[in-house]
Amino acid sequence: MFQSFETAGERDAGPGRLMQLRAAMAAARLDAFLVPRADAHQGEYVAERDARLRWLTGFTGSAGMAVVTAQAAAIFVDGRYGVQVRAEVAPCFEPQQVPGRKVSDWLAGRLGQGARVGFDPWLHTRSDIDGLRDRLGAGIGVVPVTPNPVDGIWTDRPAPPRGPVRAFPEAIAGATRAEKIAGICAAMKAEGQAFAALSVPDSICWLLNIRGADIPRTPVVHAFALIETATGAVTLFADRAKFRDMDPGVPVLPQEAIVQALSQLSGPVRVDRDTAPFAFGDMLEESGVEIAWAPDPCILPKARKTGAEIAATRAAHLRDGAAMARFLHWLAGAEARVLAGDRVTEIDVVTALEGFRHETGALQDISFETIAGSGPHGAIVHYRVTRRTDRALAARELLLVDSGAQYEDGTTDITRTVAIGAPGAEEIACFTRVLQGMIALSRARWPEGLAGRDLDALARAALWRAGQDYDHGTGHGVGVNLSVHEGPQRISRQSATPLEPGMILSNEPGYYREGAFGIRIENLVAVARAAPPPGGDPDREMLEFETLSFAPIDRRLIDTDALCASERRWLDGYHAAVAARIGPLVPAEVAAWLRDVTRPL
Amino acid sequence: MFQSFETAGERDAGPGRLMQLRAAMAAARLDAFLVPRADAHQGEYVAERDARLRWLTGFTGSAGMAVVTAQAAAIFVDGRYGVQVRAEVAPCFEPQQVPGRKVSDWLAGRLGQGARVGFDPWLHTRSDIDGLRDRLGAGIGVVPVTPNPVDGIWTDRPAPPRGPVRAFPEAIAGATRAEKIAGICAAMKAEGQAFAALSVPDSICWLLNIRGADIPRTPVVHAFALIETATGAVTLFADRAKFRDMDPGVPVLPQEAIVQALSQLSGPVRVDRDTAPFAFGDMLEESGVEIAWAPDPCILPKARKTGAEIAATRAAHLRDGAAMARFLHWLAGAEARVLAGDRVTEIDVVTALEGFRHETGALQDISFETIAGSGPHGAIVHYRVTRRTDRALAARELLLVDSGAQYEDGTTDITRTVAIGAPGAEEIACFTRVLQGMIALSRARWPEGLAGRDLDALARAALWRAGQDYDHGTGHGVGVNLSVHEGPQRISRQSATPLEPGMILSNEPGYYREGAFGIRIENLVAVARAAPPPGGDPDREMLEFETLSFAPIDRRLIDTDALCASERRWLDGYHAAVAARIGPLVPAEVAAWLRDVTRPL
Repeated sequence: MFQSFETAGERDAGPGRLMQLRAAMAAARLDAFLVPRADAHQGEYVAERDARLRWLTGFTGSAGMAVVTAQAAAIFVDGRYGVQVRAEVAPCFEPQQVPGRKVSDWLAGRLGQGARVGFDPWLHTRSDIDGLRDRLGAGIGVVPVTPNPVDGIWTDRPAPPRGPVRAFPEAIAGATRAEKIAGICAAMKAEGQAFAALSVPDSICWLLNIRGADIPRTPVVHAFALIETATGAVTLFADRAKFRDMDPGVPVLPQEAIVQALSQLSGPVRVDRDTAPFAFGDMLEESGVEIAWAPDPCILPKARKTGAEIAATRAAHLRDGAAMARFLHWLAGAEARVLAGDRVTEIDVVTALEGFRHETGALQDISFETIAGSGPHGAIVHYRVTRRTDRALAARELLLVDSGAQYEDGTTDITRTVAIGAPGAEEIACFTRVLQGMIALSRARWPEGLAGRDLDALARAALWRAGQDYDHGTGHGVGVNLSVHEGPQRISRQSATPLEPGMILSNEPGYYREGAFGIRIENLVAVARAAPPPGGDPDREMLEFETLSFAPIDRRLIDTDALCASERRWLDGYHAAVAARIGPLVPAEVAAWLRDVTRPL
Repeated sequence: MFQSFETAGERDAGPGRLMQLRAAMAAARLDAFLVPRADAHQGEYVAERDARLRWLTGFTGSAGMAVVTAQAAAIFVDGRYGVQVRAEVAPCFEPQQVPGRKVSDWLAGRLGQGARVGFDPWLHTRSDIDGLRDRLGAGIGVVPVTPNPVDGIWTDRPAPPRGPVRAFPEAIAGATRAEKIAGICAAMKAEGQAFAALSVPDSICWLLNIRGADIPRTPVVHAFALIETATGAVTLFADRAKFRDMDPGVPVLPQEAIVQALSQLSGPVRVDRDTAPFAFGDMLEESGVEIAWAPDPCILPKARKTGAEIAATRAAHLRDGAAMARFLHWLAGAEARVLAGDRVTEIDVVTALEGFRHETGALQDISFETIAGSGPHGAIVHYRVTRRTDRALAARELLLVDSGAQYEDGTTDITRTVAIGAPGAEEIACFTRVLQGMIALSRARWPEGLAGRDLDALARAALWRAGQDYDHGTGHGVGVNLSVHEGPQRISRQSATPLEPGMILSNEPGYYREGAFGIRIENLVAVARAAPPPGGDPDREMLEFETLSFAPIDRRLIDTDALCASERRWLDGYHAAVAARIGPLVPAEVAAWLRDVTRPL
C-alpha cells in the first residue's frame, strides 16, 4: 500500500525545536530565518531528509514556509491548507494565508533597519529572493546561510535518498537521448548560450531517458546536470550509488561537485531564475561567469509529447480505466452496503482503489495521494484522509475521488464524483453544470496559437450563468511516467503558453459548497491537430483535445433535460467508448455493470 | 444625406504632388518623410484640412501612412484596405500591408547611415516615434519637422474647422463638469501629478459636458486642455470662434498657445504616450518640465457610463430600433421587387436606412459610414459603397448592413445580415454559428474583475467547432453621443482591461467567405451587476450584459434544430422584447410585419 493514513507531523515537538532554531540563529547572528517546504529541485514532493518544514512545525502540506524571528514565528500557507495548518501546527507558529499575507510585510513589521534575514541558498530560487529583497528594501539584508541551521539541530535527520536509477525505454520516449540533446543544444546555440545548468529532476530524467526512485509519487532521480552546447556533452551531478543498476552513459560526479563545476565554466550559462537554486546564480556571479537567465531548456520539449509517448499513455489510461471500472463497480456494492447500514469509510475507498490499481500488475506508485472526500470533505479541494479525519460514506451525500497512477508507460489522474443513495436536486443541478463545462472543453476546437487562458471560460460558462464558479485552474499539464503536475501548459486565465500538439493536460472543472459537498469531474486530454471539417476555413490550422481517460460518469447526477442535444451526444459517445474499450479488460460482472451505467442517457 | 458615395481621392494628382513633396524634402535636407492619416488628436476621422494622406495619394481609408524618399514611395495600410488602396492610389506609391510589412524595414532598406527621416511632431504619438527610433537604430535620425512640408505645397488647403460648440445636457451626462473634474483631480493627486495635458477631443468633451462639430461622425470639438490638480482649473486651447453659441465656463486660449503654456508649467505633467502629440513631450522635455507618462485620465471614467447615460442610451436605441424596423420592413419590400426583376442597389439600401433615421427627427449624424455589402461585398469587413462599386441585390445572396446613428442621447451601432430570396444551406449553417456566439455573449454572466479576453472564446466556440473563425475582435467600446469606437474596454483576446458596470460594448461576431458572402450580427450591450441567482455563490460578485439594441434577426437564416433549447429561449425572448418595445413606435403595417418576423421560432 503506497498511501499512508497516518499524520506524520510531530505537532508537539514544534515549540522545542523552535527554541533550538532560535539559538542556532543567534549563534549565526540572524534576526530571522526562512524554512520553506522545498528542496534543491523545487518539486512537489521532498525526500524525508528535506522535510525541514514538517520536522520543525508538524505541517504536512505540499507547500508552505515558516518564518522565524527571535520573538515571533509564522507559517505561511495558501487557502487549501487554512484548516489543516491549525490542526497540525502548534500555535507558537502563527498561521498566515498567502497571497493575502506576505512574508515581506510580516518581516518588515518585526525587524528594524540593518536586520539580517537568513535563507538556505539551495532551497529558494533567484526569483523568490529577488522578490523578497525588492519588497523588504535596502534596509534589511537577505543573506544566504550555509549550512542550514535546521540541519545542525535535526540530529536524527534521515540520509539522502539513494533510489536506483533505471533506463526509460526509447520505445516509449519516442526519441533517443542523443536526439533530445541535439535538439536542446540547437536551441541553446541559437540563443548564444554555451552551457545550461539543470536542477529540475523531471527535465534531467526526460533528457537522458532515465527514471529514479528518490521521492514518492514522482519517479525521478535527484540530480543536477550541465549541458555543453558546442559538444552536446552532459555531465550529471548525483550520488553514483544510484546508478548501481544502469549506466547513464554520461559522466556522473558527486552532487556537491556542481559548485566547483559552475565556477569553472566560461559562459554564457543558461539558468532558470524560477526553478534553479539561488546558489547557482550566486556561484556563477562570484566566479564572474556570465549568466543567461532563461527557462529550463527541457521544459517545452518535454511538454510536447512524442507520438510514442501519446500511444504509450493511451495504453496506460486503458489499464487505469479497467482498474477504475472495477473500483466504481466495487463502490456500487459498497453503496448498497452503506444504504443497508454497514460502515464504509474514506480509507476503505482509498484502499480499495489502490488495490485494484495494484492488481493491474503494472502499478509503480500512485501519482499523488488519493483524495477521497465524502460529504463536506469533498469541498476541501486538496483533502487527504487520515485516521483522524476518516469519515463514513452516508446516504444522500456525494463522494469525490481524485486519484492517479504511475505506470512505466504513463501517468494518470482522474476524478469522479458519485452519489451515495439518491442525490438531492441541488447536487444534480451543480453536477450537471460542471459536466457541461467538462464537455465544452472536451469538444472544443480552436485556432493554433491560443493559450489555456483563451479556453478557460468554456469550462466555466454554465456555472457562471448560475452565479457559481470554482477557485482553481481548469487544467494542469501532466508528464509521461513523470510528474502529474507539469508545466508550462495549463488551462487557466493565468496561462499565456500556447497549447501545442502532444501536450497532455487535465480537464477538471468543479464546484464546491463548504460544509456540504464537493464536485469535480476530471479526464486527461492530449492536444492534437484537428482534421479540417467540411466547410471549415481552408487555411486555418485548428487544434482539439483527444480524451485519454475512460471511466463512467454517474448518470444519477445528470439533469438530462438541462443538456443540449450536442452535449448529450458527446456524453453518450464517450460512454459508448468507455464500454467498448474498458469492457473487454474487466471481469464479466464488471463488464455487465459497465454496459448498464454507460447506456445512452 | 450624410453619407457620400463619391470617391473623394484624386488618384491622378498623386504623382505630381509626390514630385513637389520631394522638392520640399530636399529643401529641408530630409531623406524621407512620413505622411500619416492622422491629425493632432489621433481620432478615427480627420477634418478636410488634415486629410494630407488623401490629398497626397488619393487613399480614402481611415488608417494608413505614406512614406516617401527621394527615389521611392510606399503607402502602408492594414488588411482591410489591401484591395481599396490599389484602386485609389497611383502605382508610384508602392502598397505595403501592415503588420507584415514594417515602415522601419522599408526605410532601413533604402536609407544609409546618417540619413534623416522627417515627421510632423503634431501627427505622431510618442509611442509611434519611440518605436520607430528603436527599430531604425542610432544610425538613422528621426527628426521632427515643422511646418509640415505637405502644407507648403497644398496651396488650396481648407481652413480649420470652426464647428459650433454646444452644451451637453447634465441630465444625460449624469454628472456635472465640476464633479467630473473633482474625480479626475483626486486620481491625479493620488499619483502625484500636478497637471494633465489632454489632446483627445472625446476626453475633453466628456470632461466639460460639451459637444462640437469639427469632424464628421463624431460630435467633438478639436481642442487641447490642461487640468491643474491642485485647483481643478481647466484651460481650453481652441479657436474661440467655436464657442459663439455657448460659454464653456473655462478660459479658452488659441489652440497654438498650448506650446507656450506647456513650457511654463511646473510638473509633473501627466501625458499619454499613446494618444498625445509627440510635440507635447518634446516641448516639456525642452523646457525641463517633469513628465508623468500615464494614460489619459478621462478614458476610464468616461468608459464607466453613469446611470443617466445608460438610461439615455436605452432611449436612443429604442428610437434607432424603430428606424431599423422601418428599414428592414422596407428591405422586405425591396427584396420582393428584386425577386420580381427590379434593380435595388447597395446605395439604395444606404439611402433608405439613413432616410428612416433622418425621419426620427433626432438624427445629428450617422455614427460611421454605413456598410451595405451584398453578396461578395459582405466579405469585405470595412466595405463602403461608392458609385464605382455599387452592386445590385440578387436572389440567393446575403446582404450585410452595419450602421449607426448619433443622437444627443446616445450613439448606436447595429449590424443585421438578411437573406435576399431563399438562402443556401451553407449560409444558414454559418449564420446559425455566428448567432450562437452572439447569444452566448448576450447570456453570459461572469465574476467581476474579468477582462474582454476572458470572454472572447464564448463568441467563437461554435464557429471553432466547425473549423471556422473571424479575423476581427468580438466587441469594441462605444461612447454616449461621442465616438462609436471608444477604449479601453474591448471584447478581444488582446484586451486585459477589466469589464466594469456601465461600460458599453458591441457584441458582433461574424463569418466571412471571400468572394461569396459575409455574415455579422451586432447588438450593443452594457455591463451591469447581475442579481445573484438562487443557489449562486453568496460572496461572488457577478456581472452580465444588458442588451441595448432591438431589431429582428432574420429567422430564414437560422437552423432552429442546431440551437439548444436555452439558445432558442434567448432568441424568442429577445424577439418578443423587440416586438413589445419597437412595435408601438412604428406604423401599423410595420408593427404587423414585426409581429410576424419576431414570432417564436
